[in-house]
Amino acid sequence: MQTIQQLQADLQAGRNTSEKLTAQALDAIEAHRKQGGSAFVHVDAEAALQAARASDAARKAGYAPSPLAGLPVSIKDLFDVKGQVTRAGSKALDGAAPAQQDAVAVARLRAAGAILVGRTNMSEFAFSGLGWNPHYGTPRAPYDEERVSGGSTSGGAVSVAKGMAAFALGTDTGGSIRIPSAFCGLTGFKPTAHRVSLQGGVPLSTTLDSAGPLARSVACCATVDAILSGQALDARPANLAGLRFYVTQDFIGDGVDDTVGAAIESALSRLSAQGAQIVKFDFPELRELPTINGGGGFAAAESWQWHRKLLAEQGNAYDPRVATRIRRGENIGAADYIELFHARARIQAIAADRLRDADAWLMPTVAVVPPRVRDLEQDEAFFAANGLVLRNPSVINFLDGCAVSLPCGEPGVGLAVNGLRDADQRILQISAAVEAALN
Amino acid sequence: MQTIQQLQADLQAGRNTSEKLTAQALDAIEAHRKQGGSAFVHVDAEAALQAARASDAARKAGYAPSPLAGLPVSIKDLFDVKGQVTRAGSKALDGAAPAQQDAVAVARLRAAGAILVGRTNMSEFAFSGLGWNPHYGTPRAPYDEERVSGGSTSGGAVSVAKGMAAFALGTDTGGSIRIPSAFCGLTGFKPTAHRVSLQGGVPLSTTLDSAGPLARSVACCATVDAILSGQALDARPANLAGLRFYVTQDFIGDGVDDTVGAAIESALSRLSAQGAQIVKFDFPELRELPTINGGGGFAAAESWQWHRKLLAEQGNAYDPRVATRIRRGENIGAADYIELFHARARIQAIAADRLRDADAWLMPTVAVVPPRVRDLEQDEAFFAANGLVLRNPSVINFLDGCAVSLPCGEPGVGLAVNGLRDADQRILQISAAVEAALN
Repeated sequence: MQTIQQLQADLQAGRNTSEKLTAQALDAIEAHRKQGGSAFVHVDAEAALQAARASDAARKAGYAPSPLAGLPVSIKDLFDVKGQVTRAGSKALDGAAPAQQDAVAVARLRAAGAILVGRTNMSEFAFSGLGWNPHYGTPRAPYDEERVSGGSTSGGAVSVAKGMAAFALGTDTGGSIRIPSAFCGLTGFKPTAHRVSLQGGVPLSTTLDSAGPLARSVACCATVDAILSGQALDARPANLAGLRFYVTQDFIGDGVDDTVGAAIESALSRLSAQGAQIVKFDFPELRELPTINGGGGFAAAESWQWHRKLLAEQGNAYDPRVATRIRRGENIGAADYIELFHARARIQAIAADRLRDADAWLMPTVAVVPPRVRDLEQDEAFFAANGLVLRNPSVINFLDGCAVSLPCGEPGVGLAVNGLRDADQRILQISAAVEAALN
Repeated sequence: MQTIQQLQADLQAGRNTSEKLTAQALDAIEAHRKQGGSAFVHVDAEAALQAARASDAARKAGYAPSPLAGLPVSIKDLFDVKGQVTRAGSKALDGAAPAQQDAVAVARLRAAGAILVGRTNMSEFAFSGLGWNPHYGTPRAPYDEERVSGGSTSGGAVSVAKGMAAFALGTDTGGSIRIPSAFCGLTGFKPTAHRVSLQGGVPLSTTLDSAGPLARSVACCATVDAILSGQALDARPANLAGLRFYVTQDFIGDGVDDTVGAAIESALSRLSAQGAQIVKFDFPELRELPTINGGGGFAAAESWQWHRKLLAEQGNAYDPRVATRIRRGENIGAADYIELFHARARIQAIAADRLRDADAWLMPTVAVVPPRVRDLEQDEAFFAANGLVLRNPSVINFLDGCAVSLPCGEPGVGLAVNGLRDADQRILQISAAVEAALN
């Protein structure tokens, strides 16, 4: 599919209709399913087509409520959609009652005129950056079906990459928008956590969760974010010349594979050639993060609070790899949890200091290209790969920052443009400039 | 001593000097000490007199920085004062280094020109509403030396009641400003917690702690609060006629003794006679609070985080009655702690609903008159009395509300004028009207 701007222009000019667009998306979903694809866990074909026809009629009558009007969107399975059971990629919630109302983010997309085509597959309860899901299948990277799509917004990324939606609604607690964006050749935006309401979504970590789009460009992301947050940001490209891009090898650079390393180096060279400054800096305190989060961190503490009753009742329905990680929260005391916030504040202050002259902080979204599914069968390999995949993006959640992941020349590789808390507008502007420079 | 307004008018008119006022305060402190009184744990006689003389000189030169300029203030022992060891009423911090800077609240008082006469005694680490302190003595109610002054700002209350300071800086986590105000015939203001910085103070519960004044009138409290918060509120008396005062017997009314019951009834009658409406309402959910806080609540979880290292090193230096309560926090899991916030939000929503038409919520500040010291020797009696004394005021901390405690006709009895979060200005206005009506 094209960008949101192109699609909307065609609709507005009468060169296309929402019904056609939606039918194409549904056809792509059906073709994907027939080929064994697992991007969707639930498809709303009839309702989507009906909504698309209504959108076309409204547009003919002169009413198009937003730049998303008439465009097909996929919804991560953890968001409530009125009348549907929210399963969050699990079987443990099969007995849950259908949602009585849309999640806030879903309601905003619907009010903006977007066409909900279905619920996308995800890592169970959003745990893991790989998209691994033993219940509904593990979605694959579009460029190599042997490799994972990344997660946890696994199906959402595939849905956009394969033309099953114009954009996807995802969430990101440690990279769950950015990792699959990188692995699937998309642009993903993880806003500062408080920007978009998570109400009506199954939480993973109430402290770290954020919601945002996976799409085809920075401008697409900004358009969706304006609807999701209710606050439009000015995302016109920054002037690249003279921008100070900070890069560190500390922690972030460990274990970067050759493909990723070369793609990032090449991108930095191109940015430098176009006048940006690449500034190497030290951030050794990042190496404290594995210790700070050694007990499972915010995600374990907060998911244990949410899941402990469900685990007691439906524990056998969980992927054991997920249940194991949630259960770590049982051993986190209130005092330990409070000290997590203290540690976070300390590292945030150090980041603010070390990055005080930076326009953005660049890094590989993920240190490695998508792992092959067959290499994740053993628990040890799975957890090692998962830890490495989550490592870079989760730094930004820990800092309560914001980030865009951009395609970076090689399939499966993303370049992350990162900022600290509430730098969303500037990060979108800078990402738009970087996007233009790399294209 | 007189009110802040009277004292300041006398200074400004040249009828009195800060040096005389301070010398009087220091004389009163010395007389109190010689009679075995334990209101102060540290007195700054020389520094205070020097500051007072400087204040007088500045005023002669036309400079008086605030309505507190030149007035003696006492500081609760838990606040940092530059160059002094902060002990928080304990022996466990005897080895601590002197504070390198003033706590924010102290710095604001000092910048406003107040004269710091010394550090006041308190319940160890602010635990207990009785003022019990085995290390430095238990301050007594001015009207009956057999009875406790109330706490935890025990010495602060006595310092104001006995003319050793024009006002006192206290803190309130479950009633620690309001209880001693009620027991000592003073007016105490517990603002909404976020109004006044607690930075540079030893915390009890970072969620529940608040800082404010103990003084002689509502206007005095408003004047001090404006300095402490940096935001002056309009505290002119409300028009009493037609105000809706909500009163509930649920939870709040249990175990009220005859003296308190009669004094409150009499006060309500006088308010009613002057045109206010007394509206009885139900709030049965308050009876859930003992269960919600059954594990020790925010105070146990958060104090355990602060104290666990110190307890391990200096546990024998603690009052066992305090250590026991702090150690309850060891058994509070992160998930339990998170659920405390959920329970709080739920009860807050119910309070907002039940009180939506109320101008203020009136209750006995404390259900009983000050207990006799001799009746607190046994642990069981102590904990029962402490729980009952804290019960009413701690409801307001749990709700994140604000409150004024006013003298209520009988020695040792306070009438609390309560509001929900950020209702501070209106509660001061209403309290000023109630104060006038009861005088």
